[in-house]
Amino acid sequence: VMIMKDLARAAALVVVAGAVLPSAATGQPAPGPVEPGPVRILITYSSRTGHTAALAKAVEEGALRHVGTLVTLKPVAEVSCAELKVADALVVGSPVYWSNMSAEVKAFFDRFTTECGFLPPAFPMRDKVGAAFVTGGEVSSGKEVALLTILAAMLGNRMIVVSEGQALGATATTGDGKAPLAPEALDEGRRLGARVVAVALDLKRGRAVIR
Amino acid sequence: VMIMKDLARAAALVVVAGAVLPSAATGQPAPGPVEPGPVRILITYSSRTGHTAALAKAVEEGALRHVGTLVTLKPVAEVSCAELKVADALVVGSPVYWSNMSAEVKAFFDRFTTECGFLPPAFPMRDKVGAAFVTGGEVSSGKEVALLTILAAMLGNRMIVVSEGQALGATATTGDGKAPLAPEALDEGRRLGARVVAVALDLKRGRAVIR
Amino acid sequence: VMIMKDLARAAALVVVAGAVLPSAATGQPAPGPVEPGPVRILITYSSRTGHTAALAKAVEEGALRHVGTLVTLKPVAEVSCAELKVADALVVGSPVYWSNMSAEVKAFFDRFTTECGFLPPAFPMRDKVGAAFVTGGEVSSGKEVALLTILAAMLGNRMIVVSEGQALGATATTGDGKAPLAPEALDEGRRLGARVVAVALDLKRGRAVIR
Amino acid sequence: VMIMKDLARAAALVVVAGAVLPSAATGQPAPGPVEPGPVRILITYSSRTGHTAALAKAVEEGALRHVGTLVTLKPVAEVSCAELKVADALVVGSPVYWSNMSAEVKAFFDRFTTECGFLPPAFPMRDKVGAAFVTGGEVSSGKEVALLTILAAMLGNRMIVVSEGQALGATATTGDGKAPLAPEALDEGRRLGARVVAVALDLKRGRAVIR
Repeated sequence: VMIMKDLARAAALVVVAGAVLPSAATGQPAPGPVEPGPVRILITYSSRTGHTAALAKAVEEGALRHVGTLVTLKPVAEVSCAELKVADALVVGSPVYWSNMSAEVKAFFDRFTTECGFLPPAFPMRDKVGAAFVTGGEVSSGKEVALLTILAAMLGNRMIVVSEGQALGATATTGDGKAPLAPEALDEGRRLGARVVAVALDLKRGRAVIR
Repeated sequence: VMIMKDLARAAALVVVAGAVLPSAATGQPAPGPVEPGPVRILITYSSRTGHTAALAKAVEEGALRHVGTLVTLKPVAEVSCAELKVADALVVGSPVYWSNMSAEVKAFFDRFTTECGFLPPAFPMRDKVGAAFVTGGEVSSGKEVALLTILAAMLGNRMIVVSEGQALGATATTGDGKAPLAPEALDEGRRLGARVVAVALDLKRGRAVIR
Repeated sequence: VMIMKDLARAAALVVVAGAVLPSAATGQPAPGPVEPGPVRILITYSSRTGHTAALAKAVEEGALRHVGTLVTLKPVAEVSCAELKVADALVVGSPVYWSNMSAEVKAFFDRFTTECGFLPPAFPMRDKVGAAFVTGGEVSSGKEVALLTILAAMLGNRMIVVSEGQALGATATTGDGKAPLAPEALDEGRRLGARVVAVALDLKRGRAVIR
Repeated sequence: VMIMKDLARAAALVVVAGAVLPSAATGQPAPGPVEPGPVRILITYSSRTGHTAALAKAVEEGALRHVGTLVTLKPVAEVSCAELKVADALVVGSPVYWSNMSAEVKAFFDRFTTECGFLPPAFPMRDKVGAAFVTGGEVSSGKEVALLTILAAMLGNRMIVVSEGQALGATATTGDGKAPLAPEALDEGRRLGARVVAVALDLKRGRAVIR
């Protein structure tokens, strides 16, 4: 019986311990996690030659390494405000034109204001996970600037930003643009997609804990 | 003994259930959260005139809005590799010198490699939350560049980056540098500290769920 | 007739002398400059509320401090490839949307490729002077990023880049956007316009020397 | 006499036209160029493995394509304020550490203030030509950020900024860092050095024209 009690107490402790989660030491009774549901990830891009679309596909493959992930993959021009709102994570891809993201991708962000009304202080994209991927003809002629400024747009929306692949996101150098993307580039894309979902999942689980 | 075994099994079930907490709805019974412990936040800065130190103090105040948060607040030169390793979140502040973070703050990041051995592919700072704050004499002469490049250093370490205050972090414009920081600037700092801990807490809780 | 010939010879000497101005100390006799003609500056912008247009007007005023400067001032959507080609200097202004230049301004740069055929290795904008100005609602929420990435687009075109006002160009903080621009902001614009023409003039004179 | 007068007027026009060069409509008599002397270029860098030093050497080779150019090539730690002051052009090279220029290079810029007293509004580096080159282990993990922020530091000093090689300057990807730099990278360095001197020379000639 003694052992029995100990075990019962041990089991209870697991639950009770959950109750004292730091920011909400409220003395409330046993919290339990609520099933947070799958991560919804929106992967969107502009692509003229198909390279950025191919990298987007790799990001999707990486996202799907997490079983159950719900992926929406489409060009920026086709994304609705509703799709943005329901997404847990947003990954944006662009070709590099003149050291920056394409105008089409920038227009996607500008529609946050003009079409979706995503404004401060509400910031409806707040706390969603964001990341970026790019393709560029040259090694160092704007890929990083494009990545960093996509992330800057996301940070302006108060999103939570991550990278993978290269320091600031997934990249492909396309050279003359005729050949398919290098396997290493596609792998960067996959790793980015997987990481975004992993972080979004951690956040979603953490928020699902009843406090 | 039979009951004892049942209890043991019950306790095990809590763990097992946690183990199957899925990225998608599985219909499994309620898993239990494990106490993740308080968020440890390291707030560090360089400061010659005291302005950046004052903004760091405001970030600390914001962090402490979450009861139980463990704050370490100190100049970059005094931060140890061990302190970096145990932190859940890192917030770095710099004055703006010539459109960039100070050399002292950059040296702090460079020590990640030379002193701490924080290298790929391990990236020991991976998945910690990062954010930045800056003070600058002029309105638009490098504060954003300093913020963005501190965040870029963090993203290179595969940290998870957030902002608050202005788009890229908390800021203060100091003018001639004689007067104390404006209340609005200190408020940006507090909001940044609070947000960093909130995100770190969500992540910590999410990861504490036994899967 | 004698005098006539002397005068003709004198006139010729001016030109001939110009031909021997060396790139290094050659000990040659005094060369003479060839009149390079006035600086042609193209100031272009996108503006929804009129603030960026007002700052553009200030840039024009600054440019006109140099007597004889030929200014073209118009929205980005109205600029032709021919206007770009004949310009000695290009100054681009944008409002800040989501921490970056507007999509309309980015589309202006993208037309360099799709409409004007400004491609490497020719880079038809090469060696023209470039600069940027921006207006933003908040103090530090993208003005610098917008400035820096406009300059990055210009550097990608192999332009010669300068700033004035703030570190990276002329800026105005518009707040709620109702009030006219602050006098200090307009002064930044004027100083930017004046500096761009001064540098373009130096370059034009330097190149006009017959070598 | 009529013809004589016309010729005299024509000759005078050549001179007068020169005299009324836009920024200095002084009505002064005949301007003439003053021999501007050779371009003095300071090429400075930090280098731990020798890669950035090798790229610096290539920049020097490019600069020397312009006969008579006076080159100073040395590590950032050895540059004096006097060397900065006499230079017509400054080219700064850095390895990429954590997505940014090295702390050693940043310290070089910070000494502009603390040691050299290069402050606004005098900006003693004003109107000198500036450019950047970098080496990095990975394709897209900070080379552009390092280039762009070196240029931002220069723009803050009101320098005149150019690039060559990649969009923002000369670059080398070093991988594991064992092999010597690729011929393409060295060529980027040479082209950068040559371009910087060409622009500095144009500016120097243009300014030497007596107005």
